[in-house]
Amino acid sequence: MMPRMRVEIITVGTELLLGQIVDTNSAWIGAALAEAGLDVLHISTVGDNAGRIVEQFRTAVGRADAVIVCGGLGPTQDDLTRDVIASVMGVDLVPNEAVAQRIREMFAARGRTMAQNNLRQALVPVGAELIPQQPGTAPGLICQIGDTVLYAVPGVPSEMREMVAGTVVPDLRRRAADRGEAAVVTSRVLRTWGLAESKLAELLQDRIDVLDRRAERLDPADGPVPTIAFLASGPEGIKVRLTVRAPDAEQAERALATEEAEVRSVIGRYVFGVDDQNMESVVLDLLRRQGWTLAAAESLTAGYVCGRLAAVPGASDVLRGGLVSYASEVKHDVLAVPEGPVVSEEAALAMARGAARLLRAETAVATTGVAGPDTQEDQPVGTVCLAAVTPDEERATTVRLPGGRENIRQLSVISVLDLLRRLLVEPPAT
Amino acid sequence: MMPRMRVEIITVGTELLLGQIVDTNSAWIGAALAEAGLDVLHISTVGDNAGRIVEQFRTAVGRADAVIVCGGLGPTQDDLTRDVIASVMGVDLVPNEAVAQRIREMFAARGRTMAQNNLRQALVPVGAELIPQQPGTAPGLICQIGDTVLYAVPGVPSEMREMVAGTVVPDLRRRAADRGEAAVVTSRVLRTWGLAESKLAELLQDRIDVLDRRAERLDPADGPVPTIAFLASGPEGIKVRLTVRAPDAEQAERALATEEAEVRSVIGRYVFGVDDQNMESVVLDLLRRQGWTLAAAESLTAGYVCGRLAAVPGASDVLRGGLVSYASEVKHDVLAVPEGPVVSEEAALAMARGAARLLRAETAVATTGVAGPDTQEDQPVGTVCLAAVTPDEERATTVRLPGGRENIRQLSVISVLDLLRRLLVEPPAT
Repeated sequence: MMPRMRVEIITVGTELLLGQIVDTNSAWIGAALAEAGLDVLHISTVGDNAGRIVEQFRTAVGRADAVIVCGGLGPTQDDLTRDVIASVMGVDLVPNEAVAQRIREMFAARGRTMAQNNLRQALVPVGAELIPQQPGTAPGLICQIGDTVLYAVPGVPSEMREMVAGTVVPDLRRRAADRGEAAVVTSRVLRTWGLAESKLAELLQDRIDVLDRRAERLDPADGPVPTIAFLASGPEGIKVRLTVRAPDAEQAERALATEEAEVRSVIGRYVFGVDDQNMESVVLDLLRRQGWTLAAAESLTAGYVCGRLAAVPGASDVLRGGLVSYASEVKHDVLAVPEGPVVSEEAALAMARGAARLLRAETAVATTGVAGPDTQEDQPVGTVCLAAVTPDEERATTVRLPGGRENIRQLSVISVLDLLRRLLVEPPAT
Repeated sequence: MMPRMRVEIITVGTELLLGQIVDTNSAWIGAALAEAGLDVLHISTVGDNAGRIVEQFRTAVGRADAVIVCGGLGPTQDDLTRDVIASVMGVDLVPNEAVAQRIREMFAARGRTMAQNNLRQALVPVGAELIPQQPGTAPGLICQIGDTVLYAVPGVPSEMREMVAGTVVPDLRRRAADRGEAAVVTSRVLRTWGLAESKLAELLQDRIDVLDRRAERLDPADGPVPTIAFLASGPEGIKVRLTVRAPDAEQAERALATEEAEVRSVIGRYVFGVDDQNMESVVLDLLRRQGWTLAAAESLTAGYVCGRLAAVPGASDVLRGGLVSYASEVKHDVLAVPEGPVVSEEAALAMARGAARLLRAETAVATTGVAGPDTQEDQPVGTVCLAAVTPDEERATTVRLPGGRENIRQLSVISVLDLLRRLLVEPPAT
């Protein structure tokens, strides 16, 4: 068996060196490759300078089996990735008429005139394969340079993700399989909410120790040994990732299923979903199964609860809508919240009932609290009252959330949805 | 005058390669150095592997005047930065008793027992200067390697920032001054909406050519010569950044003011704000000046318009709230939108009027459209109808927005706020 594939990531753009934007692309690509069982050994960032891009590409091609270049595919004179690839490959850049046509069509569809420099994006190094452009205007490139494959993808995160997940990772997996690398790396993410990362780690420490000992003794009777990793994801909760490398998909699946059961036996109460599920999709699914619709009354979140629920395709059969009652009078006038403090569980419950009535929904959630920077009604910043109502039950709670204004608002969203989720899946408190 | 100082940043940690955490440190350091007029030419990330760290340090020391290494100073066996520096310097690591004593004291002060491996953090390469540890337990290092200075700082962001801002940047500024480098780099960002990056670049090409010629001819009579750069920021619009390097702050400010006037004379109609302003804050400020309040009626954005307005501290004196009318019946029942197609400018206008009435606001905006994945009312995905109403005027428009569901929803937010902004700042169409 050959040594494992060495992958290298290069991000291109002076704005990254100047710190004008944070490079989130590298981490995203690194995680996607790790999940596919591929090793990233270097990440480099270089500015929009032809000489230094050439030098960086040459270094990477010299030491890696695969290089993923991110950025520098746009239409302006600063976008040098195509030119540098052609120069490193020692070939010409030639216009690709099909790509040019698609660029013209995209501008026409949006009713905009196309600046001529957009056609730079239709230039392709001779011998390069294309990764189809979508939804932007620059195609990605797959270029063989000696024994190394170089992929070029745009720096716009949505376009990059589409191309890396849809084309680059599958292509790399094929190449790794051709080299005879262990066939399958699979992982499963348990999505949790309600416990800190350190607390989850403490609860699972015994299990992690068992797995560590198995991994060390290398006894084939153990079968593939999973690993457990924690990934704090802010207002998305803490992800617990189980990963296993196995000779085939069936063994991987079996090991993951066993491990998931072990982990759930310890922290199952805090697991709200798996893999691509998020709190929004889980709550919508639970309501859909009951045949109930949902409304929201939002004060400090001011639309984020509804907005994030609507991000789930197909939300419209459950989500009726919501009322953002940012001003206190709107709470009283439109939602019939009684006079009195608005940062209170009573107000939150009245808001939820009012939204259910106004929007004719069976269930509703409500948020009211202090996002800061100033305190309100003598309550400290971070105090948030949440409520959830269904035809069967009502619940309200008060939480203290950390961080600044935006963090408090985002954490309020997942907190109130989790309140409704527990109301739907747990027996009523007695 | 010597060539300008070339600085390089290296972040160390396998968790960065695996994408378990996003490297925000590099961007922070890059911005701090840019502000101090220092050029970062490379950013690299390498895992906790001694061989590859050595290789990366040698490459950096060979091509840069200063190297900032971030991470790998902790207490565990994975923390290799100190060892590698000693090896690249060709010196021993020796225990520093003062540092060791401070580590012991920190543990004692928190009432914790100290694991022995914490004393690894008191090891110092012979000849290195210390950057005092605070508030963590590892000191930073300043090491002269040939003509290059190498700084090592912890990866924990708060400790890194303290050391970089407090020690590294001032030290670098001193070294740059010793080389006779100009003092101040200042920039100004013009926030634009409504034109593609390629179109902005085309409109400003003549001006960019003028600046390029000046930069080349190096005539002192020109004074400091600004540069113009474009930064596509998705649903935040396109940023046009003017940057100038000048001997002092006054000359920098004067050059920027002149350049801003030049650029605005060409693309001023599309500039909605400057620097930290965003579309939300600009619209809220315009309304506040008029003494008007605002409501929103949202269908496909489903709360994002209100949610983002409320992200601006102090929004509450303008923003009354909003109605998320995700279900069509809510549009008809609560907002009194007449029966008929809901993806239409008529429906958008009726929604805006309904929200203004319901929430008793002087002005309102509304969004209705097709976010996908499915078409609606035979309209293609991306078709969005927007409306804005004030006591003086009403406007509605239909746009075609690119990308997937989330992108379309996010672009709708800035589009509808820009519609209201234009209604507030431009004379009524005749």
